[in-house]
Amino acid sequence: MKYTVKITKNNHNDVISRIMDIGNNEIVSFAGGIPSPELFPKNEFQKVQIKLLKDEVENMFLHSPVTGYNELKKEIKNLMLNREVRISTNNIMITSGSQQGLDLIVRAFVNPNDIILVEEPTFFGAIQLFEALGAEIVAVPVDEYGIQVDALEYLINKLKPKFIYSIPNFQNPTGITMSLERRYELISIIEKYGIPLIEDDPYGELRYEGKDLPSLKALDKNDYVIYLSTFSKVISLGLRVGWIVAPERVINKLSSFKQLTDLHVNTLSQHMICEFLKQSYYENHIKRIKKEYTFKRDLMIKELEKNFTEVEFYKPQGGFYLWCKFPNSIDLNLLLKKSIKNKVNYIPGNSFYAKNKEKSNFIRLNFTYPKRKEIVTGIKRLRNSLDEIIKKEMY
Amino acid sequence: MKYTVKITKNNHNDVISRIMDIGNNEIVSFAGGIPSPELFPKNEFQKVQIKLLKDEVENMFLHSPVTGYNELKKEIKNLMLNREVRISTNNIMITSGSQQGLDLIVRAFVNPNDIILVEEPTFFGAIQLFEALGAEIVAVPVDEYGIQVDALEYLINKLKPKFIYSIPNFQNPTGITMSLERRYELISIIEKYGIPLIEDDPYGELRYEGKDLPSLKALDKNDYVIYLSTFSKVISLGLRVGWIVAPERVINKLSSFKQLTDLHVNTLSQHMICEFLKQSYYENHIKRIKKEYTFKRDLMIKELEKNFTEVEFYKPQGGFYLWCKFPNSIDLNLLLKKSIKNKVNYIPGNSFYAKNKEKSNFIRLNFTYPKRKEIVTGIKRLRNSLDEIIKKEMY
Repeated sequence: MKYTVKITKNNHNDVISRIMDIGNNEIVSFAGGIPSPELFPKNEFQKVQIKLLKDEVENMFLHSPVTGYNELKKEIKNLMLNREVRISTNNIMITSGSQQGLDLIVRAFVNPNDIILVEEPTFFGAIQLFEALGAEIVAVPVDEYGIQVDALEYLINKLKPKFIYSIPNFQNPTGITMSLERRYELISIIEKYGIPLIEDDPYGELRYEGKDLPSLKALDKNDYVIYLSTFSKVISLGLRVGWIVAPERVINKLSSFKQLTDLHVNTLSQHMICEFLKQSYYENHIKRIKKEYTFKRDLMIKELEKNFTEVEFYKPQGGFYLWCKFPNSIDLNLLLKKSIKNKVNYIPGNSFYAKNKEKSNFIRLNFTYPKRKEIVTGIKRLRNSLDEIIKKEMY
Repeated sequence: MKYTVKITKNNHNDVISRIMDIGNNEIVSFAGGIPSPELFPKNEFQKVQIKLLKDEVENMFLHSPVTGYNELKKEIKNLMLNREVRISTNNIMITSGSQQGLDLIVRAFVNPNDIILVEEPTFFGAIQLFEALGAEIVAVPVDEYGIQVDALEYLINKLKPKFIYSIPNFQNPTGITMSLERRYELISIIEKYGIPLIEDDPYGELRYEGKDLPSLKALDKNDYVIYLSTFSKVISLGLRVGWIVAPERVINKLSSFKQLTDLHVNTLSQHMICEFLKQSYYENHIKRIKKEYTFKRDLMIKELEKNFTEVEFYKPQGGFYLWCKFPNSIDLNLLLKKSIKNKVNYIPGNSFYAKNKEKSNFIRLNFTYPKRKEIVTGIKRLRNSLDEIIKKEMY
């Protein structure tokens, strides 16, 4: 039997599969965008479950409203207030992670051949999704203050994009945080040209140094920003709970697609996270993971500095990743092969480019998922892998 | 700000919202495709949760493989063996309910303007999804033995459809079960013309009388059938766990889209259902709900017969629904308005037609969700609503 297949064949699937299907304990993985399993708030969730089993066993297995469990929406409304965004629960839709939020937005509003402007480099899950749904991706360069607004304005004028997609906090993969000035400039441009912007903010809570900056949504007075966030990076990826903040009419449109896709987010996860927030476990948990992730970030930086003189990287103020630049002379395809043989895994930089993949001499290293000692071992293995290539080239 | 919206405006959204956002206890709802909350296996799930909290709290919040938790796939493999389908776990993908299964299949394999043949009438969630994704739906008539194969063959020849979509067991909304002979004829036609078929089987376990018939997938020797099922109708809608059975290469393609959509089904629900199956709670639970649903079906039939002489309906051998035909003289739009005013809710028949909506003088009544006494009250309210119309017409 023949099935016609629409999806473009590329290396992205392979990349995500490698991240998701972790399980080989011999391999040190710097590949995932996954929180540390050791820091999962096990005791708190045991308490939450025991309470729910007692008080809410009737409700936690029933269907939920399409846009989400209302009590959880109230908790998220409060979280958003901490992020300086004042909304009603009607501005919120709960999604199966922010990946689904992105999927719903594109399905509802983007037509084939519409242009989406993205930071270059950017999250491969977004690139792959936009491509699969037939959008054309145009990359906007990024410097250490975030998206370059002059280039952005030029491209808006030239291309009339449907959306801009941005990760302002601890960007994936670069770790760069958009400066306050850039945020104001960006908002002023999207208001001037009337172009909606998708703000993807999975890492915003995870700042290890410096001051919190207002989200783009907080600066957006005219409803041009659709904000996405998730509990996947701070509580549990497996629970699959994220959310969208948007004008009510946008939430209503998205809810049509949510119904078609899978009716609603599973009720059990929504109740668990809601109770976790209600019991005020959240704040302490965030404090705890920030402390450990700061340690791990600094440890990885130390090990990189100790083992590599030829690699440059940016020190991120938060988030999950180090974005490491190798000399152009190094064949990064070969490095990946050697590294996998030597049992250390990461994501090659070209996965984060829609086009110009050949330009990339970067790799992305995640420092939250591996254990402390694995960070040390893994960086050594990476060093050995690089040595094997260099030696080979000498003969 | 302007967002272009692709979704067709029709009454479907409204219908699903009405079903999902139940919560007003004064209204008797015959609208939902929802299992009885009273029959939820509360004690069993409490035991399951306590066991998981003790033994697996590490794993139940972690990410899962894209195609699903392997232990659950093994359990589903065994379930499928009971349904006479012999497969490996590589033929299974776990989905967020079978609605997501359908969504993934259409996204992966159907292009805009492709034709999908469906039974008329059929599940509105499928109609709405196919339309939203740009497919053209062509209806094939159904008689009391299921889809009419002569008409089907004629339409295949004429239209070269991409897929056939069928619900052979206790069809939604008609309750009709496809006869064994028809099943063989259907398989022979799809093999002759090489047209893949989506078999949607959410109700197959819920037979109240007569003998189980082999699924189309069990009769399909050449991989033309993609089979969908779910735990939503037999255990819990809120857990959002369904599955797809298909050739491995199809599962691989679907998994690309699953990754893009929401990475994987939430791990917690997968572990809960897996443990429920492992502990052999499933069989007893099915026995228990079949007994109660048989009673409710018979009670609703009795009340309909007592209160209505002008309404005809089909007695289904299983499933969730009575499909009731009203005289053509009755204005069913008016009946719906009166019914909602009188606090009884159901789905008007025209929701189950892609075209020819005006042809429908049916309504669909669900007998599993309402309590026994609500069935009695609700049918009386429906009678009163009809009386109000008839009286009005007399003057």
